[in-house]
Amino acid sequence: MKKYALRIRIWIDEDDGPFLGIGRVILLENIKETGSITNAAKSMKMSYRQAWQLVEDMNKRASPLVEKMSGGKKGGGAILTEAGENAVREFRNIEQELNLIIANKSKTIKF
Amino acid sequence: MKKYALRIRIWIDEDDGPFLGIGRVILLENIKETGSITNAAKSMKMSYRQAWQLVEDMNKRASPLVEKMSGGKKGGGAILTEAGENAVREFRNIEQELNLIIANKSKTIKF
Repeated sequence: MKKYALRIRIWIDEDDGPFLGIGRVILLENIKETGSITNAAKSMKMSYRQAWQLVEDMNKRASPLVEKMSGGKKGGGAILTEAGENAVREFRNIEQELNLIIANKSKTIKF
Repeated sequence: MKKYALRIRIWIDEDDGPFLGIGRVILLENIKETGSITNAAKSMKMSYRQAWQLVEDMNKRASPLVEKMSGGKKGGGAILTEAGENAVREFRNIEQELNLIIANKSKTIKF
């Protein structure tokens, strides 16, 4: 007998466009982990320009989520603001909660 | 203050690949409404070939969902089988249930 699994993709829209999806959340998590947009972009095989644009777009659609630090020996790094930390946590919580619900639903579907 | 809305896309995978998403459900609903794959395809601006391939794929991944009737004055029509009716109903139920959950969640998110 064949097995079926319910799947979902989650994202958050702001009034004027997409705000936060799994790709952007992973980017934020990587910025947090590596301490810079450059390194985060590298770890995702994304260009710096693309990562930077995503950060700019997120910062525009909410309280700034990423703070860029200029200068210093290593060039500019970047950190998540409190709003950035909250956004990641909130997204992951919602994801986990919905994944639980659909894992339970998956068990009951049959075709 | 900006407003945010949580969004989801739902689909169902079978062991070997995607089985049912919103596009296929709408195709099934249109087959039911129009009584043929040709008319359903037209109403979605989809080629007959593409619609037919989607139907073949769905029929392979579950009990047949669509039954093609050959011959008759109007050429072959198509109807949903009981399994087809159930699949549409089940998908729409799951969708509605999850939409309620995320509508409630949407009210609480803030960035």
